[in-house]
Amino acid sequence: MKILVVGATGTIGGAVADTLAERHEVVRASRRGPVRVDVADPASLDALFAGVGDGDLDAVVCCAASGGLTPLDTPSDERFWSGLDGKLIGQVNLVRRALTRLRDGGSVTLTSGRFTEPIPGSSLGYLVNAGLEAFVCAAATELPRGIRLNAVSPGWVRETLVTLGMDPSLGTPAADVARAYADAVEGDAHGRTLTVGAV
Amino acid sequence: MKILVVGATGTIGGAVADTLAERHEVVRASRRGPVRVDVADPASLDALFAGVGDGDLDAVVCCAASGGLTPLDTPSDERFWSGLDGKLIGQVNLVRRALTRLRDGGSVTLTSGRFTEPIPGSSLGYLVNAGLEAFVCAAATELPRGIRLNAVSPGWVRETLVTLGMDPSLGTPAADVARAYADAVEGDAHGRTLTVGAV
Repeated sequence: MKILVVGATGTIGGAVADTLAERHEVVRASRRGPVRVDVADPASLDALFAGVGDGDLDAVVCCAASGGLTPLDTPSDERFWSGLDGKLIGQVNLVRRALTRLRDGGSVTLTSGRFTEPIPGSSLGYLVNAGLEAFVCAAATELPRGIRLNAVSPGWVRETLVTLGMDPSLGTPAADVARAYADAVEGDAHGRTLTVGAV
Repeated sequence: MKILVVGATGTIGGAVADTLAERHEVVRASRRGPVRVDVADPASLDALFAGVGDGDLDAVVCCAASGGLTPLDTPSDERFWSGLDGKLIGQVNLVRRALTRLRDGGSVTLTSGRFTEPIPGSSLGYLVNAGLEAFVCAAATELPRGIRLNAVSPGWVRETLVTLGMDPSLGTPAADVARAYADAVEGDAHGRTLTVGAV
């Protein structure tokens, strides 16, 4: 398969690209390259597909960066909503563009996420993750040509916890998280959110 | 109580305002007036609260209009996302503004919604409703001064079915839907989505 991995320079995206590259042709894209794309920018998504989607693309995987915490009393609308454009709107826009560029029977795999429990500042994150997962479930009913759509909900990733100086035993190794993405690409799941890890 | 009802000229909003007006002071707002507001416009929300939120507001209820179906293959980003600004972003922005304008122990009640099952064109509606309900649940953990936050998820409303020429027996009378909003305002629910009707 020829697979486009967006966010391929991140902790999860890098592991996903490495895992898929063992048996597929992988095109690595991210804001930093090698193929440059900003998921939050619709024109950048158009340019991405104009460059790589020449009729032979079998799958798109998006490992978009998750946003940080956003206190509800953030005064600025722009700052409160800054996490919306990439992870929610951007990933849905990626699906909408992939629809016409993927081969028959292709697939799109997105990234949601989750919290252990609601904490102050998590309301936008909850909105984004729940909105994305509900979208995946409903949009699956109207995908053409056997195209499948799924999301992966990674919990804490071990490498991220190490970077943050937190207890790594709570996290799942990125290589294990990557296997869930590979399952979504290579299996027959459709309209589902695949959950990885305990928290 | 002094209660601001946004969307008060709609089928549900009108019934909610009438029900609450039996025992409270109700300020009716909508795009058509009498107090004018467009929930999708942040500046309009600011003007609304500058006009009515003079320290004596006990509750805000938002009965925002729900969007129509939006096919996933809608080519225009702007058209696909047109339902987002009011029902999801607008209602969250209303909560964020109400935080500093409500009396201690006040409340905000929003409107989500639901489908019987995923159908073509429903993916944005699913995203909006699930995102809003997850937001309500998570944001409840960081509301100050005893302020409560809930959503009502109305199914089919009988009056709407009549207007659409559909079988009205599938719907709940607007006056019954309105009671769920009154329960949210007058009760002690917090962080919840109150479901009304069978479908």
